[in-house]
This record gives sequence, C-alpha cells and structure tokens, in this order.
Amino acid sequence: MMNDLEAGKYSKRGVSSSKREVHDALEGLSRGLYPKAFCKVIPDVLTGERDYGLVMHADGAGTKSSLAYSYWKKTGDTGVWEGIAQDAIVMNLDDLLCVGITGNILLSSTIGRNKRLVPGEVIKAIIQGSMRFCEKMKAMGISLDLTGGETADVGDLVRTVIVDSTVCARIHRDKVIDNASIREGDLIVGLASFGKTSYEDAYNSGIGSNGLTSARHDVFDKRVARMFPESYDEGMPGDMAYCGTHDLTDIEPETGLTYGKLVLSPTRTYAPVIRAILESCPGRVHGMVHCTGGGQTKVLHFIDDLHVIKDNLFPAPAVFRRIQETSGTLWKEMYTVFNMGHRMELYVPPETAPVICSIASGFNLEAKVIGRVEAGKGRRVTIDSPYGTFTYDKNE
Amino acid sequence: MMNDLEAGKYSKRGVSSSKREVHDALEGLSRGLYPKAFCKVIPDVLTGERDYGLVMHADGAGTKSSLAYSYWKKTGDTGVWEGIAQDAIVMNLDDLLCVGITGNILLSSTIGRNKRLVPGEVIKAIIQGSMRFCEKMKAMGISLDLTGGETADVGDLVRTVIVDSTVCARIHRDKVIDNASIREGDLIVGLASFGKTSYEDAYNSGIGSNGLTSARHDVFDKRVARMFPESYDEGMPGDMAYCGTHDLTDIEPETGLTYGKLVLSPTRTYAPVIRAILESCPGRVHGMVHCTGGGQTKVLHFIDDLHVIKDNLFPAPAVFRRIQETSGTLWKEMYTVFNMGHRMELYVPPETAPVICSIASGFNLEAKVIGRVEAGKGRRVTIDSPYGTFTYDKNE
Repeated sequence: MMNDLEAGKYSKRGVSSSKREVHDALEGLSRGLYPKAFCKVIPDVLTGERDYGLVMHADGAGTKSSLAYSYWKKTGDTGVWEGIAQDAIVMNLDDLLCVGITGNILLSSTIGRNKRLVPGEVIKAIIQGSMRFCEKMKAMGISLDLTGGETADVGDLVRTVIVDSTVCARIHRDKVIDNASIREGDLIVGLASFGKTSYEDAYNSGIGSNGLTSARHDVFDKRVARMFPESYDEGMPGDMAYCGTHDLTDIEPETGLTYGKLVLSPTRTYAPVIRAILESCPGRVHGMVHCTGGGQTKVLHFIDDLHVIKDNLFPAPAVFRRIQETSGTLWKEMYTVFNMGHRMELYVPPETAPVICSIASGFNLEAKVIGRVEAGKGRRVTIDSPYGTFTYDKNE
Repeated sequence: MMNDLEAGKYSKRGVSSSKREVHDALEGLSRGLYPKAFCKVIPDVLTGERDYGLVMHADGAGTKSSLAYSYWKKTGDTGVWEGIAQDAIVMNLDDLLCVGITGNILLSSTIGRNKRLVPGEVIKAIIQGSMRFCEKMKAMGISLDLTGGETADVGDLVRTVIVDSTVCARIHRDKVIDNASIREGDLIVGLASFGKTSYEDAYNSGIGSNGLTSARHDVFDKRVARMFPESYDEGMPGDMAYCGTHDLTDIEPETGLTYGKLVLSPTRTYAPVIRAILESCPGRVHGMVHCTGGGQTKVLHFIDDLHVIKDNLFPAPAVFRRIQETSGTLWKEMYTVFNMGHRMELYVPPETAPVICSIASGFNLEAKVIGRVEAGKGRRVTIDSPYGTFTYDKNE
C-alpha cells in the first residue's frame, strides 16, 4: 500500500506498515461471533447468557509517551501526562463504540517505566489523569470504571515509560453493530478529529495516537535527539531519527500551539456523541470505523465486494499538513497512516446522515457526509482529495 | 525492610523495593468490596447482579523477557518465549486463585516490541505459547479464554520486548476468599515452587517472575552486557549491571541446567491444585497469598494484629542459593524478594492442612505446614530459617 521508499523508511524505524506478522501469529485464534465486527465479540462466558456477548480489548498510547517525556523534561509541564492517560483509554473506548458499546466498561491500565528517569509524580499524573477522564465520562453518561492496574519498574526493558489500557464490556447481541452490514448505498458520515467540542477544554489538533513514530521523527529535529537520547531507539539509522525541522517549543503559526503540544494533543473521544446517536437512531447505523492504524483505509478490513468512495473529506488539519511538509511523505501514504481530519466514520442509510450531523453539531463537533459506498469487485477505497485521487485495494 | 546498602542497590537498578509511590498515586481509588482480599473485587457492574463480583487484574513477565531475549539470541532456542507467555499469564491467574477464582477467566495480552530486534517468529512463539497454555488449563478444568490482545511496534520505548497480560473474571460473592479471615490458630500450608508436578514437562526451578532484575544482574556477568547491551538499561551504574559470575550457558551443577534456563524456568501455576482444594474443602480456606513482590513477607499487606510465624519453610531451591551466593545479598532480604521455595500459601484451620497436603501430593506437588498464625500487636512476620531468624514488621 506504500511505495518502496516509504515502506523502507517505516521499516527502518521499526514500525510495521501492515500488521501481517501479527495477524499470522494470531492464526487459529477465533474471530468471534461477528467476524467483520470492529472488535472481537465473544459469547458471554462470564454469565453463560446466550443473548449477550463480551468484548475484551487492549491498546495504548504507543510512542506518544516518548514525546510526552521529552516535552515534560523540557518544559516541566506535567499536564501532558494526563493527555497520555486519555490517549491510552480512548484508543480502547472508541474502538468499543464501533461495536455499539457506550457504557458498563471496565478499564485496567498497565504502565511500565524506567524508574531512573520517570519519577512518582509522572505515574501519579497518569493514574490521576485516568481517574479524572473516567469521572468526566461518567458525568456524561458513559460508565467507565477504572478497576486498577499494574505499574512495573522495568528499566531494563523500557527506555522511558509505556502506557497501555485494557477494557472489558458486555453487550446485548441485539445491539451489536457489525460492519458486515455496511452495504451499497450507505453514506459515510465523518466526525471531525480536530476543533473544540463542547466537552473539551482546548483546541484538539486531531492527531490521535497513530503514526506517532512517523510524526515525531518527521516533525522534530536533531535537537530532540541530542537533548533526549532516551526518547528513541538509537539503533535506528541516524537519517531516520528526528529528521524534521522543529524544536519541541517552536510555535506552529496556524494554531499558535507549540509543535510539541500540537503533536501531543490528546486523542478525542467520540463516546458522548456516539451514545446520543445510538439512542436517537437505534438500528440505523450499519457500521462504524475508528480510523486508527490504516487511517482512512482502515475500512478495507471489514468489507467484501464494495467500493468505498471518499470524495468530500474534511480539509486536512494543520498538524497533518505540517507533518506532510516537513517529511515530504506522499499524500497517498498520509491517508493510510493518519486520520487526516476525521477519526470516526459511520455507515448509514441516506436519511440517517442529517440526523447524525445534527446530533454532532449539538456537541459542537463538525460532522458531514464524506463519502458513499458503491457495489464493487473485491475491496476498494478511493480517496478524492485536493492532493490527488488515490485508490487502495485490500491486497495491493 | 532492607538495609541501606541493599536499598541503594535496588534503587540504582531502577526497581522499587516497596511500591509506595505507586500506592500513593492510587490514593482515592477504592479498594473494592473486600479491602483485605488479595485482588480487588468490585460489584458486578456488567450484569448488575448483587450476588456477584468482578475482578479485573493486570501483571506481566517483567524483565524476565530481557533474559529470554539474550538466551534466545545466544542459543536460538525459541522455547523460552513460550515460558514468557506462561509467566505473563500465571502472574495473573495465580493472583486470581487467591480470591477463589479458578475458572471463567478472560485473558488479553499486550506485547510491545522493538521490531528491529524482535522478529515475527518471537511474537508468534509468545502468542502460540499463550494459546497452548490456555488449552492445557482448559483440559484440566480451568477455563481461561484468550480473547486476543495488542502487539505494538514501539522501538522508541521498548529496548527488546515487554509482555503483559490482563484478566477479567466473575465470582459469586459467597465464594470469595478474603484474607481478612486469616486468624489466630490458622496453620499455613506452603505449596512448593520447585520440582516437577504431574502437569509439568520439566523440572521447575521455582523462580517465578519476581526479583528478575536482581536475579539477572546478580547471576550473570559482563559477557552478557557486552554481547547484548540492548538487554539492560545502560544508564544504570556500571557496577550494578551484570555483576554476577556466570554466562548464560554455564551449567548449574546441582540441577544440570544452564544458568539461563534455571532463571528462565516458567512460573508454575497452582490452578489445577487450588481448584481441587477449593472443591474438596469449601469454606475451609481462610486466606491465600501468592508470594510475588514482597516474597515471604507479602502477607503483611493483608493482616492486622497478627503474628505470622514461618519456621518450617522448604529448603531454599538451588536457584535462590545461587543468587544469594553470587550476589552476597543478605538472607533477610532474600526472603523479601524471592519466594525461596513456596510461591503459594494457604491459611487454614489445623484439621484442613493434611487434606490440602494430600491433594497436592496427588499432583506430585510438595506441600507442607510451613508455619502458623498467632495473635500479636500490629503486623509481623517471623522467619526462622537455617540462615537465621528474621523479623519483619509492616512499617519497618
């Protein structure tokens, strides 16, 4: 899905462009009750009730915590750790939304740190950030219970700090959203990843928690490498490490934020909005895709013999344009790594699209029809953007 | 609980001797329905049924994976990764046993790797090792469902590979084992951590997954540091790193195993044995302690105004004697870091002790009364060993 040059750059930085190796290793593990659902739903083995299913799911903040570390060391701003806590939670929570789960969620966090470099105040900021995020969600009707977790001192493994979360939830099978229902004629409503919703305190750049290894090394320059060698794998070829043009505290002119804060912007949750949508439009949402790894092509995992056409995307937010400019990454590839403007998309019948846009607007969240689904042979996504028209096939 | 010199050594290696910082950060987080239970049990928010509780729990293989990495690189033996999978699972599973959970467990694994150093074959060995372990448990009546998990390429955070697991289970509140029930007059039955049970394929050294940062650096010598600098934090003071006397493949004479394999011996699960005990002796087990972080003093977290006397411990297995010899660690401290011979202890009325020993014996697992509980002021553990008599108080 990417040209050889770029695939090489990815690989040299130690990031899989596809997760083929991992998928191979998981062969033999069942795909659950709904093989095309966004998350694996298994029978409710905890109660044995046949009408229910369970989802257990894991994800984390990835290498965004390495940037948080550098920024915190340079500026003393511990607030960035609350953002990392949110990243690790939302990467799970918003995956759950895609199968229709908007509450009764158990959350556990796993933190591995290098105690020599990451003191108790950081752990405290992460854990208390997690607690505050859960409280905020609860106040908005999303019950998310932080059950606890593990903090391990593993400096021989972890250079700075790694923050992961695992969630567990139960859902009535009648309410499961299964992407197998995505069909010809559906419109695709995208929910903006950038801006400032009614439930956020500050402008969100839209970055999320994907592509952070690329974003960090493509935006920031050697000053970060020199000042914080512990923030990256020094075994990576030198020309791949921090080959951007900015320091952490340079100001990005369009947003007025430091580049550090721009790239650290916490992953927005869509939970309150999706909860309202599912309450207002029961049974109307055919599918939902959280545009994480794979970006705007992620839907390819869930379709067969359909052609997904995205020809009315949001304008790419500043953060992604800056990453593209400093790295020279091909636009075709940008859409496969980053969300580029919407991190959640709903596949719905035409008459439901305006209802969703109106609900989102009540949260001061931009939403619009960004594309449609047509019949096709195999699996294909076409992106028609100001930067060109790009086609992606599943097995390309 | 340790003298200044040793506390310094711990700290220089970046490992908390106590987890005070972490406990401080968790202040404000509820301790659950049974504050003295080994794991936090919360109300069953998934179903709302008042008779049930839920446990969600996280732990991992810790820095044992760093040793597995070095051993695998040196010998090509991928079997060590199956052991790491078992370590990450059993560190959770055997914690769950302590509250009375022996089945209907959901398992998710989180692996963070440096893709430059850790190829797909390793990930495959870990995931397939997890699957095989779950199948083995199922065949013995312990239902443990691997729901999936996350494998992330995070070379900028992780030097080699980190393997964590999270579990979730549901239990009828009548069946919860609450260490608040440990009382004066109880006998303590210890279940051996070493030997070869009927459900194991090879001799188990008893090491478990605790104290591995100490064990690795105290047993192995600079040859490991030179050959595999990626296996440890080079920011650690040089005299703290690999200051032992052995290479990975040196033979330990008493066991005939390589030192690498001796220290990599996978964490034994007691699940089949505990399941049989709880079925045979319902309501008779007052408390259970998995002797992980804190070793033989771990029970101090769960008692008040009791004196736990351990005066008939198993002889220390070879692995712990070798660690002590090469490191010169004080024996008093050895008992706070390592299990020293039994990794599970049950607090029971005197008449129940022989029943437990007899059940264990059916699994070819050594078990014996290792001590007793007396009334006391505050919380105290006394260990009467061939190496001296040691007293530990909670706030020492």
